[in-house]
Amino acid sequence: MIRVGIAGAAGYTAGELIRVLISHPQVELRYLQSESHRGEPVGRVHRDLIYTNLKFSDLDLTGIDVLFLCMGHGMSAQFLERHPVPASVRIIDLSHDFRLKSNAGDFIYGLPELNRERIQGAWHVANPGCFATAIELGLLPLAKSGLLPAHVSVFGITGATGAGQKPTEETHYSHRAQNLSVYKAFSHQHLAEIRETLSGQDEDVQTDIAFVPVRGCHARGIMVNAVFESERDLSEIRSVYAACYEGHPFTVMSDEPVYLKQVVNTNYCFVHIERQDRNVLVTSVIDNLLKGASGQAVQNMNLMFGLEETMGLGLKASYF
Amino acid sequence: MIRVGIAGAAGYTAGELIRVLISHPQVELRYLQSESHRGEPVGRVHRDLIYTNLKFSDLDLTGIDVLFLCMGHGMSAQFLERHPVPASVRIIDLSHDFRLKSNAGDFIYGLPELNRERIQGAWHVANPGCFATAIELGLLPLAKSGLLPAHVSVFGITGATGAGQKPTEETHYSHRAQNLSVYKAFSHQHLAEIRETLSGQDEDVQTDIAFVPVRGCHARGIMVNAVFESERDLSEIRSVYAACYEGHPFTVMSDEPVYLKQVVNTNYCFVHIERQDRNVLVTSVIDNLLKGASGQAVQNMNLMFGLEETMGLGLKASYF
Amino acid sequence: MIRVGIAGAAGYTAGELIRVLISHPQVELRYLQSESHRGEPVGRVHRDLIYTNLKFSDLDLTGIDVLFLCMGHGMSAQFLERHPVPASVRIIDLSHDFRLKSNAGDFIYGLPELNRERIQGAWHVANPGCFATAIELGLLPLAKSGLLPAHVSVFGITGATGAGQKPTEETHYSHRAQNLSVYKAFSHQHLAEIRETLSGQDEDVQTDIAFVPVRGCHARGIMVNAVFESERDLSEIRSVYAACYEGHPFTVMSDEPVYLKQVVNTNYCFVHIERQDRNVLVTSVIDNLLKGASGQAVQNMNLMFGLEETMGLGLKASYF
Amino acid sequence: MIRVGIAGAAGYTAGELIRVLISHPQVELRYLQSESHRGEPVGRVHRDLIYTNLKFSDLDLTGIDVLFLCMGHGMSAQFLERHPVPASVRIIDLSHDFRLKSNAGDFIYGLPELNRERIQGAWHVANPGCFATAIELGLLPLAKSGLLPAHVSVFGITGATGAGQKPTEETHYSHRAQNLSVYKAFSHQHLAEIRETLSGQDEDVQTDIAFVPVRGCHARGIMVNAVFESERDLSEIRSVYAACYEGHPFTVMSDEPVYLKQVVNTNYCFVHIERQDRNVLVTSVIDNLLKGASGQAVQNMNLMFGLEETMGLGLKASYF
Repeated sequence: MIRVGIAGAAGYTAGELIRVLISHPQVELRYLQSESHRGEPVGRVHRDLIYTNLKFSDLDLTGIDVLFLCMGHGMSAQFLERHPVPASVRIIDLSHDFRLKSNAGDFIYGLPELNRERIQGAWHVANPGCFATAIELGLLPLAKSGLLPAHVSVFGITGATGAGQKPTEETHYSHRAQNLSVYKAFSHQHLAEIRETLSGQDEDVQTDIAFVPVRGCHARGIMVNAVFESERDLSEIRSVYAACYEGHPFTVMSDEPVYLKQVVNTNYCFVHIERQDRNVLVTSVIDNLLKGASGQAVQNMNLMFGLEETMGLGLKASYF
Repeated sequence: MIRVGIAGAAGYTAGELIRVLISHPQVELRYLQSESHRGEPVGRVHRDLIYTNLKFSDLDLTGIDVLFLCMGHGMSAQFLERHPVPASVRIIDLSHDFRLKSNAGDFIYGLPELNRERIQGAWHVANPGCFATAIELGLLPLAKSGLLPAHVSVFGITGATGAGQKPTEETHYSHRAQNLSVYKAFSHQHLAEIRETLSGQDEDVQTDIAFVPVRGCHARGIMVNAVFESERDLSEIRSVYAACYEGHPFTVMSDEPVYLKQVVNTNYCFVHIERQDRNVLVTSVIDNLLKGASGQAVQNMNLMFGLEETMGLGLKASYF
Repeated sequence: MIRVGIAGAAGYTAGELIRVLISHPQVELRYLQSESHRGEPVGRVHRDLIYTNLKFSDLDLTGIDVLFLCMGHGMSAQFLERHPVPASVRIIDLSHDFRLKSNAGDFIYGLPELNRERIQGAWHVANPGCFATAIELGLLPLAKSGLLPAHVSVFGITGATGAGQKPTEETHYSHRAQNLSVYKAFSHQHLAEIRETLSGQDEDVQTDIAFVPVRGCHARGIMVNAVFESERDLSEIRSVYAACYEGHPFTVMSDEPVYLKQVVNTNYCFVHIERQDRNVLVTSVIDNLLKGASGQAVQNMNLMFGLEETMGLGLKASYF
Repeated sequence: MIRVGIAGAAGYTAGELIRVLISHPQVELRYLQSESHRGEPVGRVHRDLIYTNLKFSDLDLTGIDVLFLCMGHGMSAQFLERHPVPASVRIIDLSHDFRLKSNAGDFIYGLPELNRERIQGAWHVANPGCFATAIELGLLPLAKSGLLPAHVSVFGITGATGAGQKPTEETHYSHRAQNLSVYKAFSHQHLAEIRETLSGQDEDVQTDIAFVPVRGCHARGIMVNAVFESERDLSEIRSVYAACYEGHPFTVMSDEPVYLKQVVNTNYCFVHIERQDRNVLVTSVIDNLLKGASGQAVQNMNLMFGLEETMGLGLKASYF
């Protein structure tokens, strides 16, 4: 059994992580650290879990095999400075602190479709961002095969859980329901890791990703639509994708157009490609809290510990 | 033209009030007072109104014919102590501060279906609560005719706008969407005004209103379902309602079951009655921000100034 | 391994059943019968399942240990007349055809919290209705202990999946979103099985269940609020419930008010009790497609085959 | 008073048209023709209108000044062949039958921001499509000033009302809620009128509009995000837009990013422009049933009859 500790266990992504790990056949949840909720039953915060006896507790860096860091962006680096984690403990960080090469140290970028072998040997993994995961999985096969064009227009729509747990004007139900709004046009914070991931596949390509994120009126899930011009045949493009994702259990090519709820509450990414004249559309959908965060973190844990990549991740889609 | 001032103009109910009054043919909006937003364009807060030139401003108690108080509960009484309003200025208060007889002073309870004549002569009106309006309009004909039974079970479902503008855990989209929860069972703060209104119609009746409010996953509107036992014929009950609401333009009896969106974005209350064996169901639906707040306030203003009761309130239902 | 066949496998409840069974460690899905979709990949209909190789097929009554009937109401009885199922094959029927004693034959009513021992020995189980499950679990402890009062007002709110797969005016998104409506007041088709279940616990009690169902603007889940008058202490009532549900893993008493999404996408029923003066409120919440249909069917299967009652049902709540 | 007849009065757009016209100060609704609902009260179909006495009736081509055609696409042309409308009766057609020059005859394309003067003199107007309106208003100033680039990526998100009244799998609440899906990528039926409108402004420009429509999980409203590369300064682009829309009361430039509910239940189009490096984003939002259909039809009627362009269109935004 893998002994797991979670730091920052009262947040959204930690909640999802607990929901997944609680049924994972090879995991023993050793503690759920939360400063603000120490001593309280977990079900007080993650209220579907009232049937468990789990409690929030203090940090304890001994007696675990892996530590998940579920703190806010910028907090993980601080945390690791204050709390030296023993070399025997693996770390999976869900923040953006160690994703970029300039800050990564020995952290491996935890996108299994790109880095599976390196993750299998890693002690420290930086889990990708949610939009980054959806966009990268939509464009990675092109980047790997040198087909990425110089300009891609990318439209992403994300749910309210993407904005985190803190109630704000933008996540107020009265505002958000039946609404749509653009934010951070061309300047989303995930662009850096996206550019690094895609350009890292082919030094010659400097692709301009014109990314427009939209706040949707749903709770869970990201849909990304990437549009670009290409001379290639649709069948050639599809072959490149099929080859790239063969053997990757969670990224699935769909012959039919995809829709968001096919993957909500699962760890899947579904990808669909269409083309008309010179215009190509690649649609990718994920659950931002699972494949875009906690599910991918468990996938990485499975890889790091030599388990079946899909273990504990056979999650039932909510679908409706 | 009626010269109107609004105090506390940056809140939800004030926003709705402005939206209604801006097209009212007999109203001149003189100022929209807001301490926190003074000097800003109104469209910065009520963002559908960016096409207007209105600005938030200071208070000015002269040069107006009526002042609407759109402040939080408990704030209106304080406001009037600090700011003595000239006797020549009518007041319509949207808080609960003057609804109960014990605190009302010369404020008339502003439910036109109950108090139309008194409102027409009033200088000060206390606008009813949203749940109070829906429940009272559902039961008033029974109370007036002595048919109100000793026990009524009342289930109300309200939207997120009913919880006000402040972002909270309960109004976070991620929590609220696709969700339902009970709150303040048997103890909602409107019960006092409901009891006073209904029992005031017949001193002998002390009806137990077992009221269970539910937070729904919609933004606007209240549905109230009142269930009680009665020996009366359905046709007799319906006659009592028809007689009570005849000549009241905004409360409409429906032969068919009603649904919420029939009245959303309007000032209407639709009421439907069903019966099987001894059980009777009265369903009433309103828009909590209009008939339950700002629309009814304008209706009261119309009555106080001798205008057509419906003036400026021919609002297009959003319906979808 | 239990060899499973599903008849009527293209509908909503069958979809959920497949989603659950596909990860059940003791189940081998032998076939998914569908007349209208025979030969098609399952992912064409249940589109989250495009990653599987499952196909819809013909019926085959041999080589299975249990047959789930997921056909429309009234169709199961006809089906069994036309297709005599071998005595060696267990049957779990999700329609209402065999729920009432007058039609049940040797079918056991599959509410494990009531009939666990009988289900364990049963060959044929009639799975309860969704509203019936939520209402019965809300009132069963009272019925068993003779505390059920003569009159209970019951308000239920159900999601759009409760109306089935067929697109109708009532399930059109444009109509349903942000809307609420009453239907079948005092006359819902589940009342018969509810009365039979509750009165069967105590012959002397003939309780009037005044049940008002409401269509909510959500997709999944039922909340039931039952209100009645009682002289009993809250602690006494709570003890009766605790005793009744002790050892039943899926029905959980909550000290705090419950909300719908605590149980959505799980097989749980959460129950909460409040009291003020003589009025008592019992709130129960379930996922209509799981504890109200396919999840409970798997729970019954587990019991019938001597497996752990919870096997394969450790479903991750979608929660958001 | 303008005497109005509506043909095909039981559909979505007709419902909106009735809701608007019922309060229009210069309109007398003479009849609401519906074959399928003849003789029924209008409130049986458009159920917010139960408080009126309006009934569906037969067609009558005399005694009216203007006829609105609210029938399905392809039906208007057939209708006019079967029912010769007197020359004294103006026609406003809401279908696509007369929008393209090849089919228009003497129908003027009813986009007031483009054709106001021609509409003022027109007897027959073809009301634009909903997506066409939003996209054209987003790009028209560029087209008029020769700034339209050779390639524009356009992402549109539409609500369920855009799919019409007929219940389908795609508009089933259980499917649509909390969901997103792409449809008709690069092949939406409005592309022809969009291309004709934009290229008509400058013969030399043959812009490739790569349009990806997305079905959103809301009922009303369209958001369009158009992305293209340009060397022009943001201030220059904004000036071009400001000049183009000056004096057009319903198309409003916003300095701040816009969101959908600013315009829902109104006749407004709000437009916002952002730029970073060479990438430009133009966001435009409308209510598909109003500015995208029935509201614009009334705006056109006002122009045709020499009324104030905004008359009867001071609609209160639902906003929440």
